[in-house]
Amino acid sequence: MTDTVVMAQRRVGLWIIGACGGVASTTALGLAALARGLTPPTGMVTALPQFAGHDFDEPAGFVLGGHDIRKGNFLTAARELHDRSNVFDERTLTACAGDLETWSANIRPGVVYKPNAAITALADRTDVRQARTPREAVDAIQADLKAFKTAHKLDHLVVVNAASTEPPFEVGDDQQSLERLLPALERPAPAALPTSSVYAFAALDAGFPYVNMTPSRGATLPALEDLARKRGVPHAGQDLKTGETLVKSVLAPLFARRNLRVLSWVGHNILGNRDGQVLNDPDNKASKVKSKDALLAELLGYKPQTLVSIEFIESLDDWKTAWDHIHFEGFLGAKMMLQFTWQGCDSLLAAPLVIDLVRLAALAQRRGESGVMSHLASFFKSPVGATEHDFGKQFLMLEEYLAKR
Amino acid sequence: MTDTVVMAQRRVGLWIIGACGGVASTTALGLAALARGLTPPTGMVTALPQFAGHDFDEPAGFVLGGHDIRKGNFLTAARELHDRSNVFDERTLTACAGDLETWSANIRPGVVYKPNAAITALADRTDVRQARTPREAVDAIQADLKAFKTAHKLDHLVVVNAASTEPPFEVGDDQQSLERLLPALERPAPAALPTSSVYAFAALDAGFPYVNMTPSRGATLPALEDLARKRGVPHAGQDLKTGETLVKSVLAPLFARRNLRVLSWVGHNILGNRDGQVLNDPDNKASKVKSKDALLAELLGYKPQTLVSIEFIESLDDWKTAWDHIHFEGFLGAKMMLQFTWQGCDSLLAAPLVIDLVRLAALAQRRGESGVMSHLASFFKSPVGATEHDFGKQFLMLEEYLAKR
Amino acid sequence: MTDTVVMAQRRVGLWIIGACGGVASTTALGLAALARGLTPPTGMVTALPQFAGHDFDEPAGFVLGGHDIRKGNFLTAARELHDRSNVFDERTLTACAGDLETWSANIRPGVVYKPNAAITALADRTDVRQARTPREAVDAIQADLKAFKTAHKLDHLVVVNAASTEPPFEVGDDQQSLERLLPALERPAPAALPTSSVYAFAALDAGFPYVNMTPSRGATLPALEDLARKRGVPHAGQDLKTGETLVKSVLAPLFARRNLRVLSWVGHNILGNRDGQVLNDPDNKASKVKSKDALLAELLGYKPQTLVSIEFIESLDDWKTAWDHIHFEGFLGAKMMLQFTWQGCDSLLAAPLVIDLVRLAALAQRRGESGVMSHLASFFKSPVGATEHDFGKQFLMLEEYLAKR
Amino acid sequence: MTDTVVMAQRRVGLWIIGACGGVASTTALGLAALARGLTPPTGMVTALPQFAGHDFDEPAGFVLGGHDIRKGNFLTAARELHDRSNVFDERTLTACAGDLETWSANIRPGVVYKPNAAITALADRTDVRQARTPREAVDAIQADLKAFKTAHKLDHLVVVNAASTEPPFEVGDDQQSLERLLPALERPAPAALPTSSVYAFAALDAGFPYVNMTPSRGATLPALEDLARKRGVPHAGQDLKTGETLVKSVLAPLFARRNLRVLSWVGHNILGNRDGQVLNDPDNKASKVKSKDALLAELLGYKPQTLVSIEFIESLDDWKTAWDHIHFEGFLGAKMMLQFTWQGCDSLLAAPLVIDLVRLAALAQRRGESGVMSHLASFFKSPVGATEHDFGKQFLMLEEYLAKR
Repeated sequence: MTDTVVMAQRRVGLWIIGACGGVASTTALGLAALARGLTPPTGMVTALPQFAGHDFDEPAGFVLGGHDIRKGNFLTAARELHDRSNVFDERTLTACAGDLETWSANIRPGVVYKPNAAITALADRTDVRQARTPREAVDAIQADLKAFKTAHKLDHLVVVNAASTEPPFEVGDDQQSLERLLPALERPAPAALPTSSVYAFAALDAGFPYVNMTPSRGATLPALEDLARKRGVPHAGQDLKTGETLVKSVLAPLFARRNLRVLSWVGHNILGNRDGQVLNDPDNKASKVKSKDALLAELLGYKPQTLVSIEFIESLDDWKTAWDHIHFEGFLGAKMMLQFTWQGCDSLLAAPLVIDLVRLAALAQRRGESGVMSHLASFFKSPVGATEHDFGKQFLMLEEYLAKR
Repeated sequence: MTDTVVMAQRRVGLWIIGACGGVASTTALGLAALARGLTPPTGMVTALPQFAGHDFDEPAGFVLGGHDIRKGNFLTAARELHDRSNVFDERTLTACAGDLETWSANIRPGVVYKPNAAITALADRTDVRQARTPREAVDAIQADLKAFKTAHKLDHLVVVNAASTEPPFEVGDDQQSLERLLPALERPAPAALPTSSVYAFAALDAGFPYVNMTPSRGATLPALEDLARKRGVPHAGQDLKTGETLVKSVLAPLFARRNLRVLSWVGHNILGNRDGQVLNDPDNKASKVKSKDALLAELLGYKPQTLVSIEFIESLDDWKTAWDHIHFEGFLGAKMMLQFTWQGCDSLLAAPLVIDLVRLAALAQRRGESGVMSHLASFFKSPVGATEHDFGKQFLMLEEYLAKR
Repeated sequence: MTDTVVMAQRRVGLWIIGACGGVASTTALGLAALARGLTPPTGMVTALPQFAGHDFDEPAGFVLGGHDIRKGNFLTAARELHDRSNVFDERTLTACAGDLETWSANIRPGVVYKPNAAITALADRTDVRQARTPREAVDAIQADLKAFKTAHKLDHLVVVNAASTEPPFEVGDDQQSLERLLPALERPAPAALPTSSVYAFAALDAGFPYVNMTPSRGATLPALEDLARKRGVPHAGQDLKTGETLVKSVLAPLFARRNLRVLSWVGHNILGNRDGQVLNDPDNKASKVKSKDALLAELLGYKPQTLVSIEFIESLDDWKTAWDHIHFEGFLGAKMMLQFTWQGCDSLLAAPLVIDLVRLAALAQRRGESGVMSHLASFFKSPVGATEHDFGKQFLMLEEYLAKR
Repeated sequence: MTDTVVMAQRRVGLWIIGACGGVASTTALGLAALARGLTPPTGMVTALPQFAGHDFDEPAGFVLGGHDIRKGNFLTAARELHDRSNVFDERTLTACAGDLETWSANIRPGVVYKPNAAITALADRTDVRQARTPREAVDAIQADLKAFKTAHKLDHLVVVNAASTEPPFEVGDDQQSLERLLPALERPAPAALPTSSVYAFAALDAGFPYVNMTPSRGATLPALEDLARKRGVPHAGQDLKTGETLVKSVLAPLFARRNLRVLSWVGHNILGNRDGQVLNDPDNKASKVKSKDALLAELLGYKPQTLVSIEFIESLDDWKTAWDHIHFEGFLGAKMMLQFTWQGCDSLLAAPLVIDLVRLAALAQRRGESGVMSHLASFFKSPVGATEHDFGKQFLMLEEYLAKR
């Protein structure tokens, strides 16, 4: 790579909420390894041959930073994942260690407004900032984001939520419009926004695209959708579709199209990473299970008996293992079965999609788009702004979007 | 059902080659049960709500007949399947026994020209007719078809190949055009056509739509495609996609779209019905394995290591059980796995599609179409006239076809 | 069978608590079919060639009766199981219908003392007898048992608990000895015994061997063990080992002997019969999960992380399906996996063991044994009177017992 | 470890035929790591608590050497396995590299007498020695073994066959007794012994215990059994039981004891290491499949339909993956299923057993035993000198042997 190219290259800031987690550290390692030509872009949708003509941001143009309430940084988290989950290559880790350390200097202590018990149990940074009102939290977050942008002369800054899953948040009147939300932000209580939405507000309000990789609320509140449109900022979410649900989203249409009646669909998920640990809390788990379960009825056109579980099994670390048992009825009442087991490493499935979504958010911003990027439905379990859950049809939406120039 | 309706109803003849097999007997039982309102149309694509407005032929309008080289009839075969594979309901069998017996009177002894060893081993009818030339065989078959049509005053007659799988047939010069084929039909040897194509020729030449449910050659020879166009007859094939391959055709696009690199795809199939018995012969098996294996490279855009086996395990009877192990590489070289097991009853998966294909062939004929019905690609492992193997996209082709009126 | 033989044959009464359930009706159908020579004794341990020399009671000598709080009888329950779970042969059902009807006349309404909500929800007999004290319940039960014995001139009467699983019962002082229990039986409250133990008390006190197929308390209370020894009656339990746990009890010793360290063992069970319905109640489920989970630590010598679930999935009916994921560590820290799926029909796995246990209880009684039959450990998930959980070693105990004459 | 202890410690030579393979290199790494206290003895049977009182040889007392026809050494092979199969820890590899290099100096070029095509294809050492007669090969091998023993002042020298699987060898008259074999060794052709037996002869004849980890002939010829007894040397084999067959050897007794009739047992194995590559040759595969398949009939007492396959799937490297489908009949003819998938790393399962077998062979030698060590049956798929295939019973044989002192 010559100096000339580097100078012309756009600089993209990727700000990760949950910067010390597995997804963030894998994204960091992956970007460093891609920029150094040490790994192919396997797992990245934007690297598919059919999308080759697009001017997506190059890995070498990325600068990383983020918030976290836990100690650690990109490098220590990547090493921990390597040791526990037996992923990554020692040589890649060594070659990229410098980049990860450099980016780690951009990590800032998280801002906590209304902390959740299961998540707070993980907090071990002593400098986590406690805000008295949502507004105070927003101000602190925006100061960090703006400082990052200025310091690194960024052309784009995309904020990504990769933090632990929150419990469900009940939407009330305050969240129905931006107008009603604004005064509520000044009140210490009741909480006008869950933590994930505080960060989303901060990002959108400051003009930075926001992508929500988790089932937490994030930008999916009427007031925040208002805000995004008013500020002219694109956003997307919610809950990355990387494993069992991804497989569901191609199998369910199969049964529907062949008129095979799904009698019951049982999905048991086990995993041992921090995500799993937080999901062990029933409140936090509720958001996730809901997101994993809802699509079946929409894809099938009726509601079969379903059962979805997610359980923390420590020895599995980042290896999410799922068993699905699909019981279906065919012609003349015959009952048949399809079972599958999925053994995937969650962080490694999510990280390339993080890069994809940052690239696609930056592209949307350059195209002058604002509001929900509904063409990104194929990436999410609960796609904001789209009712389509069939992965094949969702992917066509992406292809059609990219075909338009 | 009133007399008035019956009189107005179109009468559709369904002539099944392999009339004493599991697929044929299940189709017969299913049509009888549907006509009597004893079973819902589960498993039938043409019964999907989105296709409700089409004037598909009613089950009550069907009349069945067929050829076979084995003893037995629709009723004895259905009872055997019930006893061995534990399918069907005793009450349905009893209620429909009369219909199956009536239709069984339409079964005629098969016409053998160049018999295949593994298939002939199954022949136990003493009145099987041995033809000296392909032409002699064609004449005998056409006589049966025409007699059936006349006797039952049929509006349509659709010929369906549901016989055991033949070994691969090497195409030579004789099969390149109708012009070159015609004189070759008069020669006793070398065989101008494999048995399945002799039946296909007979059907198309007499103006009857032909659908090939098996991996045998059937109408997929240039000379027969010529014939179909010249006679203005629609046809379709080849090799019904009902189980493991069907699942492959939605999973492979998933890996492709997510840029996850499939390293190897192993599929082991075990089954215990007559189909399995014939496939135990290496020659006959070759046709099947080829049909099951080819689509992966086309769907993925590259050729991973693949392994497909089909083995005869007697105790499974009609319950085709498959285990697929898909080994794939994700981001940063991580190797992951998806495994599935399919436990489906082959005859009950195939029969509703037989009814669908007869309905769709009759519709095409009413629409004045001739030649390959490439819009039926979603039904087949090796769709004639289509290169698309993605089930989702194939299904769109069907939806678009039916949307045109 | 000649009259002479029949006259010499011992008559064995089998009294089933839960007489209208799947296990009871399958046992009834099986005994009738065996007596008529319509089925081989597959699944019966006492029919193994190595035990051929023993004078076990012949199927033709069995007379059935029982208690239930639900309507129905042996025949209607067998037909329901046939229809829902697709088991049994129509011909066998027809041939044995008369026997089942005859035995059904021996079914008496259940006696309820302290009903459990989940179980009572199933009660639909209007003549269920409500007792005010445990003693009153015992008296009513014993009257039924004695009447049955007299009416049928039985040589043996064995009482078998095949009723739905109760919630766990906390043992207090009253249950510590027979002496302390006797006065407590006269009190309406607090409940001195759970329902299953009321029946066990009635049986043992009247001199009838008692076998507990379920995880409910039954005879496993110090006071009832006292009673059994004092009355000189043999008994056995608890919780038949028929599926996932049976497989566990041979796999766990494998890991132990090869010094492979089990890191986690996850077992998810799904089933759709009445048993599953009752287990859907968290209280009742607790008894079952405990029984399924405890053996691992004893077999391995340490406690890996375990997870056991049992969930009601209606479409599965009697087909208990289980997925177990065993994560283990080998040499040099390598993590490996064994997964299994079990698809078994619960009633058909249990019924032959019911016949075995009745035969073995009758044998013990003829041998003059009393108290816990610890040599029957191989039959149970929580074997009373034995700490051995290794199925191989448990089976040796049975072989050694039978070798002694 | 102090000098004093080291001087008192017995020195055990472990000579591995196939020294550059995965099993050999894992054994070397494991021994080095154990001696350095870097890894627990997980996977080693001789390290079980119940055998703690035995004077087994300490890892620190082992010295390694061996023959191979391929280039490479313990260290390069261990690194290759690390890279390809994602096993071992970088720190362990680094810490033990010196030990592996030291031992690698003891590796000698293989001696080839009658090479097998599939195995020779792997040979890339230029200094492989070609013998003209079996005797010449024996002499060359013995010279290496004796030189190794002298150079390292070994108390024991145990020869272990971990080379690729040979095709089956037809036994004739020459192999029936030592007397008949001796003159035949001098003849260039026909081959008196397969290669594995040439090495076995060399070891036993020189007084060194021999253990055969593979399905190749090795010492299982009457003439070699004669030799072992005459020279007073213990030996054992054949074909380590580490994965699918190990699981079979506990599941089959389960079905037998519960009188559940196995209808069919299908086992498909896929693997990608050199073992798999050699097994891709049908001749070599035949030995393996026979060894994996035979035990079922002996364990069940009848022969169900069985199917065993082993196929080379390169991407799996050392991860042997197996799917077994067991179809069985229970009471009243109900057909049920048990399926399992095994995902194990072959070299890491085998290596600890190599150390066990060397320890047990050295112990036998100290106890003055000679001939077949039939008490080691639990280690092997085709245990020499034992007909018992039930793993539980085989293990009791080992426990009883070790209880005798």
